[in-house]
Amino acid sequence: MHTQQSANLDKRESGNLIGSDKVEGTDVYRSNGDHIGNIDRVMIDKYSGKVAYAVMSFGGILGMGKDRYPVPWSMLTYSENLGGYQLDITEQQLKGAPSFSDGQDWQFADRAGERALFDYYGAPPYW
Amino acid sequence: MHTQQSANLDKRESGNLIGSDKVEGTDVYRSNGDHIGNIDRVMIDKYSGKVAYAVMSFGGILGMGKDRYPVPWSMLTYSENLGGYQLDITEQQLKGAPSFSDGQDWQFADRAGERALFDYYGAPPYW
Repeated sequence: MHTQQSANLDKRESGNLIGSDKVEGTDVYRSNGDHIGNIDRVMIDKYSGKVAYAVMSFGGILGMGKDRYPVPWSMLTYSENLGGYQLDITEQQLKGAPSFSDGQDWQFADRAGERALFDYYGAPPYW
Repeated sequence: MHTQQSANLDKRESGNLIGSDKVEGTDVYRSNGDHIGNIDRVMIDKYSGKVAYAVMSFGGILGMGKDRYPVPWSMLTYSENLGGYQLDITEQQLKGAPSFSDGQDWQFADRAGERALFDYYGAPPYW
């Protein structure tokens, strides 16, 4: 896959880092260019220093009723073409994806909830 | 050490995550309460999803002449008492610490430079 090849090439270069404040606000698209949402923040494991997941939000009017979805970091691939992260997920898959309820912005449930999240995306857990 | 014990206790709880936007702007102090600086951002390894280091800034007037220091994530311990991160580093150590030059905000040199950084702090490298 071309994206993976580019990633491997980049990996050997020094530009392998990205600033958290550059990730925040970045658009998320499907590979066909559909806009899915934006990255609000990344959640960092305080002890291991690993990114647990990114929090993606979309919809909402003036911040009301915004849906927030935790997405495993490994699911997001930066695409120069799209000018944002690529996340290949269907509308149907997104609807069924684990999401935050109100007042739960900072922490996605407990370890069991996190496990369900990574299982849903078929991604390796961060811990 | 008390701080380490608290960290181990917290580790068993679900509140082990912190949002990147909450880290940004957080004050950094010595254990005696001296204010050292603020966290600008954390730098994330795009491929592994590991935090490489935090970028701490201090000084400067209206953003001019600000010094920016990359600090290994593992060196920063959050202190409830201080209301910020604790970094035990002397003025002398800080003066000799690796820092960014202008226009080098996003990436701290190459792997050799990164190795020198982690060696300086005696911290395990992130890669």
